[in-house]
Amino acid sequence: MPYFCNAILIETLSMSKPSIPRGTRDFGPKIMAKRKYILNTIEKVYQSFGFMPLETPSMENLSTLTGKYGAEGDQLLFKILNSGDYLKDINSDKFDSKSLTPLISEKGLRYDLTVPLARYVVMNQNEVTFPFKRYQMQPVWRADRPQKGRYREFWQCDADVLGTNSLLCEADFIKIYRQVFSKLGLNDFEIRINHRKLLEAVVEKADVSVHFKTITIIIDKADKIGMDGVKNELIALGLNDVQSTIILSLLNKQAFNAANLEAIQHALPDTENAKKAMSDLNQLLNLLDQKTDFVYLDGSLARGLDYYTGCILEVVPTSVQMGSISGGGRYDDLTGIFGLKGISGIGISFGIDRIYDVMEELNLFPTDGTNFTDVLFCCMDESAFAYSLPLADELRLNGIKTEVYPDTSKLKKQLDYANAKNILWAVIVGENEMKNNQLALKNLLTGEQELIDKMALTVFFQKL
Amino acid sequence: MPYFCNAILIETLSMSKPSIPRGTRDFGPKIMAKRKYILNTIEKVYQSFGFMPLETPSMENLSTLTGKYGAEGDQLLFKILNSGDYLKDINSDKFDSKSLTPLISEKGLRYDLTVPLARYVVMNQNEVTFPFKRYQMQPVWRADRPQKGRYREFWQCDADVLGTNSLLCEADFIKIYRQVFSKLGLNDFEIRINHRKLLEAVVEKADVSVHFKTITIIIDKADKIGMDGVKNELIALGLNDVQSTIILSLLNKQAFNAANLEAIQHALPDTENAKKAMSDLNQLLNLLDQKTDFVYLDGSLARGLDYYTGCILEVVPTSVQMGSISGGGRYDDLTGIFGLKGISGIGISFGIDRIYDVMEELNLFPTDGTNFTDVLFCCMDESAFAYSLPLADELRLNGIKTEVYPDTSKLKKQLDYANAKNILWAVIVGENEMKNNQLALKNLLTGEQELIDKMALTVFFQKL
Repeated sequence: MPYFCNAILIETLSMSKPSIPRGTRDFGPKIMAKRKYILNTIEKVYQSFGFMPLETPSMENLSTLTGKYGAEGDQLLFKILNSGDYLKDINSDKFDSKSLTPLISEKGLRYDLTVPLARYVVMNQNEVTFPFKRYQMQPVWRADRPQKGRYREFWQCDADVLGTNSLLCEADFIKIYRQVFSKLGLNDFEIRINHRKLLEAVVEKADVSVHFKTITIIIDKADKIGMDGVKNELIALGLNDVQSTIILSLLNKQAFNAANLEAIQHALPDTENAKKAMSDLNQLLNLLDQKTDFVYLDGSLARGLDYYTGCILEVVPTSVQMGSISGGGRYDDLTGIFGLKGISGIGISFGIDRIYDVMEELNLFPTDGTNFTDVLFCCMDESAFAYSLPLADELRLNGIKTEVYPDTSKLKKQLDYANAKNILWAVIVGENEMKNNQLALKNLLTGEQELIDKMALTVFFQKL
Repeated sequence: MPYFCNAILIETLSMSKPSIPRGTRDFGPKIMAKRKYILNTIEKVYQSFGFMPLETPSMENLSTLTGKYGAEGDQLLFKILNSGDYLKDINSDKFDSKSLTPLISEKGLRYDLTVPLARYVVMNQNEVTFPFKRYQMQPVWRADRPQKGRYREFWQCDADVLGTNSLLCEADFIKIYRQVFSKLGLNDFEIRINHRKLLEAVVEKADVSVHFKTITIIIDKADKIGMDGVKNELIALGLNDVQSTIILSLLNKQAFNAANLEAIQHALPDTENAKKAMSDLNQLLNLLDQKTDFVYLDGSLARGLDYYTGCILEVVPTSVQMGSISGGGRYDDLTGIFGLKGISGIGISFGIDRIYDVMEELNLFPTDGTNFTDVLFCCMDESAFAYSLPLADELRLNGIKTEVYPDTSKLKKQLDYANAKNILWAVIVGENEMKNNQLALKNLLTGEQELIDKMALTVFFQKL
C-alpha cells in the first residue's frame, strides 16, 4: 500500500462517522417531494380563504417563551448559549444549572407558532388590520425524549384569525379541513368538535365544578383508558355514581345535527355556560348550512383545554391507527400574555409528520410526485454536448424539466442515473444521431425506443 | 377608574414590551409575499435543471460544524445548551467559557448549507446517485455583530452538483443566473467568473507563489481599495515593481470571449495551472456556445478562495450599489472533511436579502404580489352570511381567493379592511340584494359600483 493511500486510511479512521442530533432528520429529495406536496396543498387552501403568510425568527428571547407552556414546557425549551465570553461577569458560586442558565442564555428556539404570533401582533398592533388572518408554516423545537413519531425538530402549519368572535371562523376552518384532506385524497377522517363551555355545563350539572380541570384531564384520556377507565378515575376523584354517570353521558360521539343539539340542550342545566355553548354550536351548524359531512360532536374532546375558551376542533384519520392529525380551538385572550387585552382568536394546526405517515401507509401520494426531471439528454461523445445544450434550453423554456448528463459515461451508467431519479425519458445523442438530426428517444418505463426528428422534440414533450 | 381597569393597567405596565433578538426579523405578510416571489422563482429555475430538494436539521452536532469555517467561524456558531441538569457531572473548576462550552453544549445551529450537504452525502453515500444535484433553501445562523444588511438569521438558497468534474455544471449555473434574474426582471447585472488556477498561474509568473494566499486576500479587496491600494499592499508585502505589475495586469475585467482568452493565454507562463485554467475556460466558452451575455472574466475575483479549486462565480447588480447577490465555485474535495474522498463538486448560493433590497430599490416587485384575497363579501346583517357563504365556496372552488368578512360591521369598516389587504373587489350583501339576487359589486381601486346577478358572479371573476 503506497504511503498516499495509507495517509487517507488513517485520516478516515481517525475521523468519527458524521451523524445528526437525536430526534432530528434529514429530508432527502423523495421525502421532500412528498412533504412539499402536503405543505403546498395546505398553503393553497389557506390562501384561498384569505390567510396571509407570516414568518417569525427561529430564536425568541427567553422572556417571550418562558412561562407560556407550563413548567414542563419550560423544561423542553432549547436554550441558546450567549455569544462571546459569557461567563465573564458571573460569579463562580452560581455553579448549578438552575442558577446558571438564566445568566448564560437569553434566547431560545421557538416551541410553537402561537406564542410568536401573539408576540408579533402585540409588537405590530398599529400596523395589523383586524381581523388578522395569518398562516405560518415553520419548524419548532422541543427538547423532548425522541421516540417513534416524536421529533425534536418538527414543522407546524398553523392558521389563526385574531380579533373577532364570529363563528364564521369555526365554519371556515371546518371547510378548510374538508378541502385539505379531500385534495390530499385522504377521505377517511373525522372532524371532531366540542365546546369548552359544554364541558363546563356538564360538570356544573354534576355539581363538581371544583374538579373541572382534573375531570377534563381524565376525559381527555377516554380514547386510551376507555369508558370504564374514565369511570374508575372519576370515582377515585370522589364523584358518586350519579355524578360520574352525568359526566360519562357526555362522552359519546354523535352526528353534529339539529336533533342531537336539541337533545343535548334538554339534558343541560340552565346556566350561562350551557346557553353560550348551545348558542355557538347552533350558530355554527347554521353557518355550515346544515352540511356536516365528516363532522362529529365529541363530548370527550378537551385538547389541552387550558387556553381554549370556546369551540375545540380535532381531526382524526379513521382507517389508520394514529392520533389526531390536526387540532385547534378558540381562545379569548391570546395576546393578553403580552399586555394586549381583548383580542379573541381561533386557530388550527396541521401535524405534517403524522399526515405524512398516514398518507404513506394508505399509499396516497401521487406516483409522479418524485419525477424531478422529465428528460435526460445522454451525450455519447464530447461534441454531443454542444449539440444537445440548445435543445435542452428550448425544452426548459417550454416548461419541461431537462438535464444533460454532464459526462460522456457509458450509456448504461447514464440510464441508471435516469432510473434512480425516476426520469421517464432519455434522449440519446451520438454520432449518427447528430449526422441525421434524428435522436434516439427512449421511454425508460416501457423500454421502447424510437427515432425522433430534432425539430419535433419540444412539441412531443409539450403534448405529454 | 374601576378596580378592573386598574388591574389591567398594572399588569400591562409590569409586563415588559415584547421584542425579538437583535439581528433577527419578523416577516409580515407583505414582506413574505415578496420573499416568496424570489424564493419560488429561484426554486422553479433550479427544478427546471433537474436539481432536487434537500432539507437538513437546523441543529447539527458541534463536532460536524467546528473547524469547518476557520477560527472566526467557530466563534460565530450559535451553540445550544444541553438539556436537563447539564452541570451535574462537571467539576466547578471548569468555570471559564472556553473550558465549559464543550462540556455543556453538544449542538449548534447550522452556519451554512454546504457543510450539512457534505455531511448528508457522506452519511447517505450508498443511497445517493451521483452526480448528485440538490438545492436547499433554508435559514442559517451566525452570531455576527448585527448591522445594516447583516442578520443573525438569514436564508441561503444553494444549489450544488457533487460527483462530476464536468464544466457543463459551470455552464448550467451561468444559465441559471440568467434565467433567475431575467424572471425577476433584474436585467442590470454582471456574472463575473475567474479560475483559481489562473490566479495561481499569474502568481507563478511573478515568481511569488510563496505569498499566494496573502496576494489573493489583497486582490479580493480591489473593489474597495482600488488599483493603487492593491499595488501599495503588494509592495508592502515585498513584491518589486515588475512583480506587482504582473499581478495588477490580472485585475482588469473583460468580456468573456475567445479573443480575450487567447490574449491571456499568451501572457501566462507554461505551467500546469495555466494550462488547466485555460482549458477549463475555453471549454466553458464552447459549452455556452460562445453566448456570453452578462458574463465577464474578472481576474480580481477570489471569494474566500480557501476551498474553491476551479471556476469561481459571482453576480453583482450594476445599477445599484450593493455587494454580490450570488456567488459560488468549484471545490475538489468537499466531502473529504467527513472522510469521503474524491468527490468533486460545484455550487452557488443566492443571497435572498440582498436580492430583496435590490428589487425593492429598483421597484421590480410585481404590483399584484400582495393581493392576498381577490374578493371580500361584506354582509350587512346576520342572514347575509348564510346567503354569501355558498357563493364564496363556489368562487374558491374556481380558484378565486375569497373571504367573507366575519362580522356585520359597518360597511366602511369592512371596506377599510379590504383596502388594507389590497383586496380589489367587494361584494356587498344586504337585504335588498338578497331579495333581488342582485349583488352590489364594488371595484375598490376605481370606486365604481354596479349590480351583478348572483348567478353571474363566478363567471365574472373567472374572466378577470
